[in-house]
Amino acid sequence: MKKSRSHKLKKLSKKIGMPPGSLVYIGNTEATVTNKPRISKMVYTADTLEECVLTEEDLANFIPDPSKKLWLNMHGVHDINLVKRMGEHFNLHPLVLEDILNTEQRPKVDEFDGYLFLETRHFYYDVETMSASSEQISMVLGENFLLTFQERSTGAFEPVRERLRASKAQIRALGVDYLAYALLDSVVDRYFHVLEGVSEASENLEQQILTRPSNSDLQNIHQLKHVSIELRRAVWPLREVLNVLIRNEKGLFKPATLPYLRDVYDHTISFIESLESIRDSLVGMMDIYMASMSQRVNLELRALTVVTMLFMPATLITGVFGMNFDYMPWLKHHDGFWWAMGLMFSIANIMLLIFWRRQWVNKSIFSADEHNK
Amino acid sequence: MKKSRSHKLKKLSKKIGMPPGSLVYIGNTEATVTNKPRISKMVYTADTLEECVLTEEDLANFIPDPSKKLWLNMHGVHDINLVKRMGEHFNLHPLVLEDILNTEQRPKVDEFDGYLFLETRHFYYDVETMSASSEQISMVLGENFLLTFQERSTGAFEPVRERLRASKAQIRALGVDYLAYALLDSVVDRYFHVLEGVSEASENLEQQILTRPSNSDLQNIHQLKHVSIELRRAVWPLREVLNVLIRNEKGLFKPATLPYLRDVYDHTISFIESLESIRDSLVGMMDIYMASMSQRVNLELRALTVVTMLFMPATLITGVFGMNFDYMPWLKHHDGFWWAMGLMFSIANIMLLIFWRRQWVNKSIFSADEHNK
Amino acid sequence: MKKSRSHKLKKLSKKIGMPPGSLVYIGNTEATVTNKPRISKMVYTADTLEECVLTEEDLANFIPDPSKKLWLNMHGVHDINLVKRMGEHFNLHPLVLEDILNTEQRPKVDEFDGYLFLETRHFYYDVETMSASSEQISMVLGENFLLTFQERSTGAFEPVRERLRASKAQIRALGVDYLAYALLDSVVDRYFHVLEGVSEASENLEQQILTRPSNSDLQNIHQLKHVSIELRRAVWPLREVLNVLIRNEKGLFKPATLPYLRDVYDHTISFIESLESIRDSLVGMMDIYMASMSQRVNLELRALTVVTMLFMPATLITGVFGMNFDYMPWLKHHDGFWWAMGLMFSIANIMLLIFWRRQWVNKSIFSADEHNK
Amino acid sequence: MKKSRSHKLKKLSKKIGMPPGSLVYIGNTEATVTNKPRISKMVYTADTLEECVLTEEDLANFIPDPSKKLWLNMHGVHDINLVKRMGEHFNLHPLVLEDILNTEQRPKVDEFDGYLFLETRHFYYDVETMSASSEQISMVLGENFLLTFQERSTGAFEPVRERLRASKAQIRALGVDYLAYALLDSVVDRYFHVLEGVSEASENLEQQILTRPSNSDLQNIHQLKHVSIELRRAVWPLREVLNVLIRNEKGLFKPATLPYLRDVYDHTISFIESLESIRDSLVGMMDIYMASMSQRVNLELRALTVVTMLFMPATLITGVFGMNFDYMPWLKHHDGFWWAMGLMFSIANIMLLIFWRRQWVNKSIFSADEHNK
Amino acid sequence: MKKSRSHKLKKLSKKIGMPPGSLVYIGNTEATVTNKPRISKMVYTADTLEECVLTEEDLANFIPDPSKKLWLNMHGVHDINLVKRMGEHFNLHPLVLEDILNTEQRPKVDEFDGYLFLETRHFYYDVETMSASSEQISMVLGENFLLTFQERSTGAFEPVRERLRASKAQIRALGVDYLAYALLDSVVDRYFHVLEGVSEASENLEQQILTRPSNSDLQNIHQLKHVSIELRRAVWPLREVLNVLIRNEKGLFKPATLPYLRDVYDHTISFIESLESIRDSLVGMMDIYMASMSQRVNLELRALTVVTMLFMPATLITGVFGMNFDYMPWLKHHDGFWWAMGLMFSIANIMLLIFWRRQWVNKSIFSADEHNK
Repeated sequence: MKKSRSHKLKKLSKKIGMPPGSLVYIGNTEATVTNKPRISKMVYTADTLEECVLTEEDLANFIPDPSKKLWLNMHGVHDINLVKRMGEHFNLHPLVLEDILNTEQRPKVDEFDGYLFLETRHFYYDVETMSASSEQISMVLGENFLLTFQERSTGAFEPVRERLRASKAQIRALGVDYLAYALLDSVVDRYFHVLEGVSEASENLEQQILTRPSNSDLQNIHQLKHVSIELRRAVWPLREVLNVLIRNEKGLFKPATLPYLRDVYDHTISFIESLESIRDSLVGMMDIYMASMSQRVNLELRALTVVTMLFMPATLITGVFGMNFDYMPWLKHHDGFWWAMGLMFSIANIMLLIFWRRQWVNKSIFSADEHNK
Repeated sequence: MKKSRSHKLKKLSKKIGMPPGSLVYIGNTEATVTNKPRISKMVYTADTLEECVLTEEDLANFIPDPSKKLWLNMHGVHDINLVKRMGEHFNLHPLVLEDILNTEQRPKVDEFDGYLFLETRHFYYDVETMSASSEQISMVLGENFLLTFQERSTGAFEPVRERLRASKAQIRALGVDYLAYALLDSVVDRYFHVLEGVSEASENLEQQILTRPSNSDLQNIHQLKHVSIELRRAVWPLREVLNVLIRNEKGLFKPATLPYLRDVYDHTISFIESLESIRDSLVGMMDIYMASMSQRVNLELRALTVVTMLFMPATLITGVFGMNFDYMPWLKHHDGFWWAMGLMFSIANIMLLIFWRRQWVNKSIFSADEHNK
Repeated sequence: MKKSRSHKLKKLSKKIGMPPGSLVYIGNTEATVTNKPRISKMVYTADTLEECVLTEEDLANFIPDPSKKLWLNMHGVHDINLVKRMGEHFNLHPLVLEDILNTEQRPKVDEFDGYLFLETRHFYYDVETMSASSEQISMVLGENFLLTFQERSTGAFEPVRERLRASKAQIRALGVDYLAYALLDSVVDRYFHVLEGVSEASENLEQQILTRPSNSDLQNIHQLKHVSIELRRAVWPLREVLNVLIRNEKGLFKPATLPYLRDVYDHTISFIESLESIRDSLVGMMDIYMASMSQRVNLELRALTVVTMLFMPATLITGVFGMNFDYMPWLKHHDGFWWAMGLMFSIANIMLLIFWRRQWVNKSIFSADEHNK
Repeated sequence: MKKSRSHKLKKLSKKIGMPPGSLVYIGNTEATVTNKPRISKMVYTADTLEECVLTEEDLANFIPDPSKKLWLNMHGVHDINLVKRMGEHFNLHPLVLEDILNTEQRPKVDEFDGYLFLETRHFYYDVETMSASSEQISMVLGENFLLTFQERSTGAFEPVRERLRASKAQIRALGVDYLAYALLDSVVDRYFHVLEGVSEASENLEQQILTRPSNSDLQNIHQLKHVSIELRRAVWPLREVLNVLIRNEKGLFKPATLPYLRDVYDHTISFIESLESIRDSLVGMMDIYMASMSQRVNLELRALTVVTMLFMPATLITGVFGMNFDYMPWLKHHDGFWWAMGLMFSIANIMLLIFWRRQWVNKSIFSADEHNK
Repeated sequence: MKKSRSHKLKKLSKKIGMPPGSLVYIGNTEATVTNKPRISKMVYTADTLEECVLTEEDLANFIPDPSKKLWLNMHGVHDINLVKRMGEHFNLHPLVLEDILNTEQRPKVDEFDGYLFLETRHFYYDVETMSASSEQISMVLGENFLLTFQERSTGAFEPVRERLRASKAQIRALGVDYLAYALLDSVVDRYFHVLEGVSEASENLEQQILTRPSNSDLQNIHQLKHVSIELRRAVWPLREVLNVLIRNEKGLFKPATLPYLRDVYDHTISFIESLESIRDSLVGMMDIYMASMSQRVNLELRALTVVTMLFMPATLITGVFGMNFDYMPWLKHHDGFWWAMGLMFSIANIMLLIFWRRQWVNKSIFSADEHNK
C-alpha cells in the first residue's frame, strides 16, 4: 500500500514528548484489524526440523535448546504485548523494541551485547500505478537464534522456509548466520524484481516521449522519479549495513558465510548503479519532453504562419477589386472575375510550392499533433 | 518569528571591532522588553526532587550539592548580567558566554575543561505562511550539572520536566548526561513536526501543480525551498555534534546513555534524508511548472490558430463576393447569398472536424485556462 | 548485440528464491543454440608450448603439470555442466561458478584461497546504430594457471595467443600473472576503440547541431548518452579492480608485473577522463539544441510578423477605398486606382526597407528552415 | 577598486620566465604613486607600550628587544626595497617576500623555520555598484614578533590598535599569537559586513523578481553571483588556513589562544554556509526570472488572441454585408445597419464575457506589462 | 595545432594488439617530416658550464661525469631509435619509453629504481580562434641527471637555459632537482598566460551577451568551454603529480627545493580556482543567452500584437462603411469620409498612447533587433 510521505511523518510525530523506549505501534493501522500477529517457530539442526506456531502463552513457557538453531518469525508487529514479551524473553534493549514497532525506520544495523539488530525493507511494485509499496523487516541475530519481525504477513520468506524443509540442504547444516544471510539475499532479490518493473516502465516511457510525447508523460516521469527515490532511500543505507556485517566485528558471522555476504553486497552495488542510470534516463527524458514542447510551439506557429501567408494575399486581392474607383481595370471585362480568382489561386499555389520546398509544409504539419491525446 | 537573513547578519556585524568575549546580546530585541529572564532550578536524585525559581541573588548564594544532580534552565538570555553571573558561578569560558548571548549561532559542540558546550536550535513551523521560526538552545553539560539557556521562554522542555517529576522515572535514576540526551531528543522530535508541515505543504503543492498550475505556485515553491534550506542548516551540523558526543572522548556520557545518543543520531540521518527527498521534489516541481508554462503557450497559440483558420476563409469569401466585377456568378441569383453563407459554414465545419480529429479542438481548449487564477 | 536494460534485469529476476550458488545460465540465449562451448588449452614454459582443444572428457582426465604454465579459455559459458566440471577440477567456490554463468555481472575482483576471481567486460561499438554491445570475461588467476571464460566465442584474445606462439616472446618467459595482465590490457585497449567511435559520432553531432540542428539530433544525443553511461558502468568498477590488483595483497602478481598493471590503470583513468569530457560535450549540445529551438521560434514569429506588417496596411487601404461614402477623394479620378495601388506598394516597400535595415528580412529568413528535414 | 579577472592575470603573467624569488610588485599601480609605504611599530608588554613610525633607515638600525612583544605593520607593499630590507632583517625566505609583493595571492599558510607565513584578504563592499573590492594582508608570526603587510593604507587594523593602547587590556598581557588572532578575527568580522551587503541586495532582488521582474534583474543576479564567487574564493582557503593554525604543529600558538582560533574557525564555517545559501537563492531567482519571462510571452499571446477573437467576427460580418448580392436580407431595411452593428457588439460582448469567466481578460492583462521598464 | 579528440583517440587505437613496451610514435605526424630530433646537452657545476648538441653517435660514446650535473633535452620525439638509444643509455623501463613516444599521455609521475618519470603538458593559446594547443613534456629525474623530451622544438625552455648560462645564478649552484623545479615552474607559468587569454575572451563575451546577444555567442561559449576542459584535464592531474613530488618519498628532491615545489603547487591550486570560476561564468552566460532569446521572442510577439491592434480596428471601420445597407449614417454626408478617417486615426492614436504608457511601444521596439546580426 502506498503511503504518502507526510502521512508517514504524521505517524512519527505522534511520539513527540514520550520517553525513549516507549512502545507505540507506528504503521499501517488497517493491518491491525484484520490480522492477529502470530509467531512461527522453526527449530533445526542438520538432521532434525521442528516447525510450529507459537501463541503468546507458548512463548512464555518456551525454553530454547542451546544445541539447536532457532528461528522465530513474527507476522505483523502491531501487537505491542507480544513484541514486549518477545523482548523480555530474549533480553532485548527497549530501543530495539521501539524500532521494531516503528515501521518507518531507515535500514540500519545496531550492535548490542550478544546480538545484532537489523532493519531492512521489502519492496513490492505495482505495474498499473507505477508505484512501489514496502514493508519493514526487523531481524535480531544471536549466537544460535534468529528473530525476524515482518510488518505484514506476506509470503516473502516462504522460499527460504522451503529450503529449510529440504532435509539435506546446505542451509540446515550451517548456522543461523547463514539463515540471516539467506533472508537478506531474498530481500535484495526482490529489489531486482521491483527494479525490473521500474526499468521497463521507464523504457516504455522513453520510447513514447521520443516518438509521441503527451501531457501525461510529465506525470509519469515524476511518478517514476518518486519510486526510484524511495528505492534509493531503502538501498543506500542497506549497503552500509552490509558493509558493517562484512566487517563482522562481533564475530556473529562465520568465516564461511562472509563470501555470501560479499555477494549480496555486490548485488546491492549493482542495484544502486542500475537505479542511478534509470535516474539519469529520467532526467534525460525531462529534457527531451521540454524540447518536444518547444518543437510543438514551433509547429503551431508554422501552421499559423502558413495559413496567414496563404490567405492574406488573396484577401488583399478581393479588397483591391472591392474598391469603388470609377476607372479600374478588369472590372468591366466579362472574364475579369475569373482572372482575379485565377490570380488568387496562382499566388496561393506558388506560396505552397515555396513552403513545400522549404519543408514548412510536409507530412509533419498534418500528423504532428495527433500525439497530443 | 521569521527574521530575514540580512537582518540576522546586520545584528552580527554590530560586534565588529569588539574584543572577543565581549558580552553583547544578539537576538530578537522584542523579547527583551516583555519577558524578564528567569532561572528554573531542578535538583534531583533517584528518590528526591527539588524544584524552584532562582533570582539573581539566589544564584549568588547558591552552592550546588555534589551528591545531587542539578539542572538550571534560563528562560531568555537577554539579561547579560544574569548570564555573566552564571558564567562566573560555573567557571565558564568567556567565549561560551558570548555564544550563549549570540542567538544566531550554528549548532556545534565545544569541549572545555570539565564541561561540554552545545548549541542547537528549536524549530516552529507556521502552516499559514509556510515559514519556519527557530530559537537557540545552549547547553553546558558538566559532571553532575546541566545548564540550559533558551532564547525565549517556550514550553519546549515541559514534557521532559514532567518526566522528571514522576517519582519512579528512569530519567530520575540516571545521570545528567541522560537528561541532556532527553532534551536533545525532544529537540529532534520537534524537527519531525516541522518536517511534517513542510512535507504536507510540498505534497499539496505538487498535486496542485500537476493538475492546476497557477502563478502563485512559483512563490510557494520558493518559500518551501527557503524553509528546507533553513532546516538543513540547523540539522547538518547537529549530525556532526551528535557524532562527537557518541565518540564521547571526554567521558561525560555513561556507556548506558550511548545507545540512546545513537538513536537520536539515527533520527537525524533519517530527517536529513526526508529533507533531501523533499528538496528533490521541489526541484522536480519547478520543472513541471516550467513545462506547464510551455504547454499553456502552446494552447494559447492553438486557440489563436484555430480562430484564424476558422475566420480567414469565410472572410476571403465575403471579400470575393464584395468585388465589383460586372460579371460574377451567383450575385444575381435569388439564393446566391445563402449559397455563399452555406459555403462559409461548410468550410468552417470541415475545419472544425479536422481540428477535432487531430485533437486540436477538444475539452482542453475550453477548460485549460481556468487554472490561471 | 544490444540488450535493453529491463531485458537484462528480467533475466536476473529468474533466480529469485533459488539458494545461492545455484548454477543457472543468465545471458544471451541465442548463443546457446548455435555454438557449443569448447575449451582451448595452452600449456607453456619459456621454451615449450602445447596448444589443443579440450573436450569435457579430456577435462575429466586432465592433470596439470605444476612446472608449466597453464591457460584454459572457455568459449561460451552456457554449458552448465562444463563450467561445473571446471569448477570441481580447480576447486572453485560455488559463488564463482554462479558469477561466471551470470553474464550481467559488474566488473569486480574477489579473493579466494589460492586464486583471484576477476570479472570484466569486452565492448564492441556499432558505428551505424551508434550503440555498444558487450560480452563478459571472467578470469580465475592461480599460482601457475589462468582460467578465462568468454561469454561468446570472439577472436578478442587472438593477438595475445599470437604473442604466446612466438617462441622468444617476453610473455612466454614470464608467469601467468603477466598473461592475465596482457589479457586485461587487450580488454582496455578495446575500450579506446569504442571510445573513438563514440567520440567521432559526438563530434559529428556537435558540428551538425551548431550548423544545421534537426529533430533527430535529440535522439542521437540521447543514444550517445546511453552508450557513454554503459561504458562508464563498465570502466569505473574496473578502475577499482585494478587498484586492488596493484595493491597485490595475495602476492599472486610478481613485482615485475606491477608497473604494467599501473600502466593499465593509467589508461583506465585516461579513458574515464575522455569519457567524462564527452559527457560534458553531450550536455552542452543539449543546451545548444534547446537554444536553436528557441531561435527557430523566433524566426517563425518574425516571418509571421513581417507578412502581417506587409499586408495589413495594404488591406486597410483597399478597405478605405471600398467604403461607400458619396463624397470620397480619388474615386472619380481616372488614375485614382493606380494612385491607390502605388500607395500600397510604396508602404510595403518602405516597410521592407525598414525590415532590411533592422536585419529582420535577410538571407536567414529564406534559408533558416531548410535544416528542418 | 574592482579589478577584472583578466586584468589580474595579466599582471601575473608579467613574471613569466623570471627565476623564483624575483621581487616584482604585482598589484594596484595607482597606489604606488600617491602613498609612500611606511612602517608603524608597536612594542609592548603587559605594562608598557611604545608606538612610532619607522623609516627605512630606522629599520636598518633597529634591534628588537626579545623580552618585549613587537608588531610591525607596513602600509602599502609597493616599495620593493623596504620589503627586501624587512626580509633581510627578519631572515625571511625569498618566496615569502615574493608572495608579499604579489597582491593577488590565494589565502594560505606556510611554515618556515622559526615563523609562520599567512596570506588573507580584507574585503570592502560597495552598495551602489553591488561589487566587492579587496586588499591583501600578509602576516609573519614569529616567537615574539608579528609582521603585517597591508596592500593599501586602510584603517582596518585601527580597532585592534585601540585595544592595544588600553593599558589593562587582555591583549597586552597575552602574546603576539593572540595579537595575530585578534587581527584575523577583525578580518573575518569584515567578511560578515560584506555578506550583509550582498545578502540585503539579494533579498531586495528576490522581492523585485517575484513582484516586478525587469530586464536589469538578470545583470544584477549575475553581478551578485560574481561577488559571491569572489568571497568564496577568499574564504574557502581561509578555512583550511585556520585548520592548520588550530593543529598548531609549530607550537607558535599558546594553548590559551586555541579556543579563540576555533571561534574564528566557527565564524568562517558559518560565513560559508550563509554564502552558499545566498548562492542557492541566486540560482532560484534565475529560475523564477525565466519562468516570469515565459509567463510574459503567455500574456502577450493572450492579448493578441483576445484582440483577434474580438475583431475577427465583426470584420466577417461587415464583409458579409459588404457582398454585392442582389438579394440579401436586412440590406433594404431601414434599421438593418443598426441590426448588423448590434450583432457585432453582441458577439464581441459574449466573447468578452467568456474571456472574463475564463480569467483570460482580467486585471493582469491591463497591468502585467508595466513592470517591463 | 588543434587536434580533435577523436583524432587523438584514433592514434591511440593504432596500438591495439601490440605487446606493452612496443615503441610506436603516437603524435603529430607533420612534425616528423620537417624537423629531425636533436639532443641538446648542458653539463654544469656551480663554476663550469658546457653546452653542445649531441648526435646519435655522440650519445653512444657519451659517458656522464658523476661529479657534474647533466641536462639532456631532446627536441622532438618521433625518432624512435634515438629514444631507444637514450633509454638503453640511462637504463629506462620500456614503459617509460612507450610513454615518451605517446604524446597524448595524461600528466603523471611514476617512480622507478633510481629515477622519477614525469609527464606534463605545455599549452599555447591562439587568440584568433580562441583555441588552445599543447605539447607533451616528459622528464626523467635521476640523482645527478635530468632528461627532458619535448614533443616539438619550441623555445619553451629558453629562459631557464639563459638562467643556467649566467655564471653566478642560484640555479647553477643547486642540483638537478632544482632544475627540474625550474622547468616545471616555467610550464605552470605558461598556463597562466593561456588562462589570461581565455579569461579575457570570456569577459568580452560576457559583456557582449549582456548588451548585444548574437547567434555566434553560443558557439563562442561552447568553444571556450572546450578550451577550459582541456586545460582542466592537464592541470588537475598535475596537481596530484606535484603532491607526490612534495611528499618526496624517493628523496630525489633536496629539502631546500621543497618550498619551491610547494610554491608551484600553490600556483596550480590558484590556477584551478580561476579556471573553475571561468567555467562558472560560462554556465551563467549560457543562462543569460537563453533568457535573452526568450526576451526577443517577447519583443517579436509584442511587435506583432501592436501592429495587429493598430490596424484591426481601422480595418473594421472600413468594413462597416463598406457594407451595402440602404440606410446608413454618414455615407451621404459630404464630410462623412473624413469623419471616418478621423475616427480611425483617433482610435489608432489612443491605442498608441495606451501602448506608450504601458511601455509596450518604446525605444526598445525600434532598436532591440539590431543586435541580431
